Amino acid sequence: MIAQQYKEMLNGKSVIRQLSEFATKRGQEIGYENVFDYSLGNPSVPCPQEFTDAMIRLLQTKNPNELHGYSPSLGLPAFKEAVAKSLEKRFQIPYQQEHIYPTTGAAGALAHALRAITVAGDEVLTFAPFFPEYNPYINLTGATLKVVPANTSDFQINFQAFEEMLNKKVMAVLINTPNNPSGMVYSTATIKKLASILVEKSAEYGHSIYLLSDEPYREILFTGVDSPCVSRYYDNTLVCYSFSKSLSLPGERIGYVAVNPNCTDAATIVNMCGQISRGIGHNCPPSIIQLAAAEVLDLTSDLTVYETNMNLIYDTLVELRFDVIKPGGTFYIFPKALEEDANLFCEKAKKYDLILVPSDSFGVPGYFRMAYCIDTEKVKRSLNVLKKFVETEYPDRK
Amino acid sequence: MIAQQYKEMLNGKSVIRQLSEFATKRGQEIGYENVFDYSLGNPSVPCPQEFTDAMIRLLQTKNPNELHGYSPSLGLPAFKEAVAKSLEKRFQIPYQQEHIYPTTGAAGALAHALRAITVAGDEVLTFAPFFPEYNPYINLTGATLKVVPANTSDFQINFQAFEEMLNKKVMAVLINTPNNPSGMVYSTATIKKLASILVEKSAEYGHSIYLLSDEPYREILFTGVDSPCVSRYYDNTLVCYSFSKSLSLPGERIGYVAVNPNCTDAATIVNMCGQISRGIGHNCPPSIIQLAAAEVLDLTSDLTVYETNMNLIYDTLVELRFDVIKPGGTFYIFPKALEEDANLFCEKAKKYDLILVPSDSFGVPGYFRMAYCIDTEKVKRSLNVLKKFVETEYPDRK
Repeated sequence: MIAQQYKEMLNGKSVIRQLSEFATKRGQEIGYENVFDYSLGNPSVPCPQEFTDAMIRLLQTKNPNELHGYSPSLGLPAFKEAVAKSLEKRFQIPYQQEHIYPTTGAAGALAHALRAITVAGDEVLTFAPFFPEYNPYINLTGATLKVVPANTSDFQINFQAFEEMLNKKVMAVLINTPNNPSGMVYSTATIKKLASILVEKSAEYGHSIYLLSDEPYREILFTGVDSPCVSRYYDNTLVCYSFSKSLSLPGERIGYVAVNPNCTDAATIVNMCGQISRGIGHNCPPSIIQLAAAEVLDLTSDLTVYETNMNLIYDTLVELRFDVIKPGGTFYIFPKALEEDANLFCEKAKKYDLILVPSDSFGVPGYFRMAYCIDTEKVKRSLNVLKKFVETEYPDRK
Repeated sequence: MIAQQYKEMLNGKSVIRQLSEFATKRGQEIGYENVFDYSLGNPSVPCPQEFTDAMIRLLQTKNPNELHGYSPSLGLPAFKEAVAKSLEKRFQIPYQQEHIYPTTGAAGALAHALRAITVAGDEVLTFAPFFPEYNPYINLTGATLKVVPANTSDFQINFQAFEEMLNKKVMAVLINTPNNPSGMVYSTATIKKLASILVEKSAEYGHSIYLLSDEPYREILFTGVDSPCVSRYYDNTLVCYSFSKSLSLPGERIGYVAVNPNCTDAATIVNMCGQISRGIGHNCPPSIIQLAAAEVLDLTSDLTVYETNMNLIYDTLVELRFDVIKPGGTFYIFPKALEEDANLFCEKAKKYDLILVPSDSFGVPGYFRMAYCIDTEKVKRSLNVLKKFVETEYPDRK
């Protein structure tokens, strides 16, 4: 008999995906250039030319059997070495090869890290607003995701709610900074306070509470933002990273788990990931992508467009008197909707071919997300449409 | 606290891996050309030049954002379409795109297929000799692998033992033909009999028993062998395929689940795979590999070397009076050891730098596996060493 659990999931279609499909369909009708599609977080800038060049060079020069052969079960040394060296240089944490486990993107990283440090019945806490895929990522492991309500004043952490929800069953806390969907970066003060609570509660409960730091947007930071390296503040940190955004390679499935060298059982956790992989059928990211990424991982795509877009959008939102906090990174912004029900708000925007994502699935009602990984020229055109939409639909607001 | 289940697995090191590591170490001492390493099933022939050309062309001509973008959650249509068309043409089964789910190799395919059709507590039956990775593949899903004892007369199926082990908790039967480690191909008679038992027992138990057909060696078939298409004989078949062996791309992680169009809930099962993927963190195989594989999937590497090697080895084994059945495909052969304990036999062979894998972990004691995916010239040299080993260590056998 087929597994009912997964069959039932088929009914719960993702809001983001539905909106994206609407945008595609609408684009076929009126031309995609006329649809202002802020639904999907797909990078809009190409990968660095150096990545393409590295791929071609590998294909042209390397023995195909070596190039396309199986990775060792813990990944290709060249990739792990390059990641460890890069992290050590940037963050002054003594990562070595044995602390790095290559994965198929951040989803693969979380799949391994979660299974290494939680078992069925454990709780994992995360903070609203949060990436809705955390629900299946965590709840399908046997552990349970619990969401700490948002601090809507600045989208840092709601520490009061967090401390109330902490209990002995919490084995991991999952953070995502820079944050999807808010665009906020947790400040040094936030990370320090979080770390001190985790140290205190680990001692009280008699077990380590691991910090899972999901960092696919780490490289997309805006001018002047306080952006602490999470792992420097808490030893029991597992960084889940993806090159999807920094190198614009979301389809090529390349990322890693980096276990802080001072983490309890650090090397054991990495070795366990190799075992976990057997159960969930990964066997490392593709060999050629590991090798090419190893050559270019200190580069990024030209990410400046995201800050340009953010400033244009933020300024217009302020001008239109939206309640909005200026993002510190990512390619998302998360303003308050102009009516209580963000779904109605976004439904009205659709009439203007403005595709905005209502916030309910992010764990905070009444807001909307714009993913501004689109051409700047289109952003500019969309802002005129946004003005028209607001003035027409909400003429009487104070 | 870290997950004990995975931590404990670290103690159970794979025999194959240990032997392969020994061979590598020994190679550093005496030159790898002098180590006759039959331990690992890594293809020894390069991928088709057309694959390399397709990769380079994609990198040189396609818009990088499209090329490296996310796959839709059910995979790239170009790849699914190419697979469905190819299967339909070869096997006259009306596969369509919606019956194909792209995966990271056969391991990824099994990870999805198993979760779609079994839940915790269910039993999955497989037949000795079997690929030992089936243990973690299945037991880590919550279902339980049970191994039907081997039919050592011809390494087809031991139907008596199979029927005794069938019970209401069996939701899936997993076969691997051509078989690792025996090299045997299940005959049409075997598949027909298996299918008829499954039809009968599905009716008796009131639930479908699915047949998982793990077919990474499908393209490596030797002259004149009866090699039925499994899926043609049983509707509730999920084929788990990998291009690792046919295209010599084991590291690039590309394969698929193909659900027979006449399978109960066929399209639903494929859609469920997309949901399962969220829990185990896959998100499809790499985009560029899907696109390149789509262009060349009716090609194979030059696989003839494996039959050449097999014949050389088989003839020598017969000459040396080994008890051995001639393989019908793969790059494995599975002779009986010259003493009861195959571990002792293989340990003695190591003194001759002949690396053979004892059969215990394959579920049949007293045999050994040779993976002859190595240069023919080396095979020839190794056979002289094999003769010397047998004559020296077993001088008195009848």
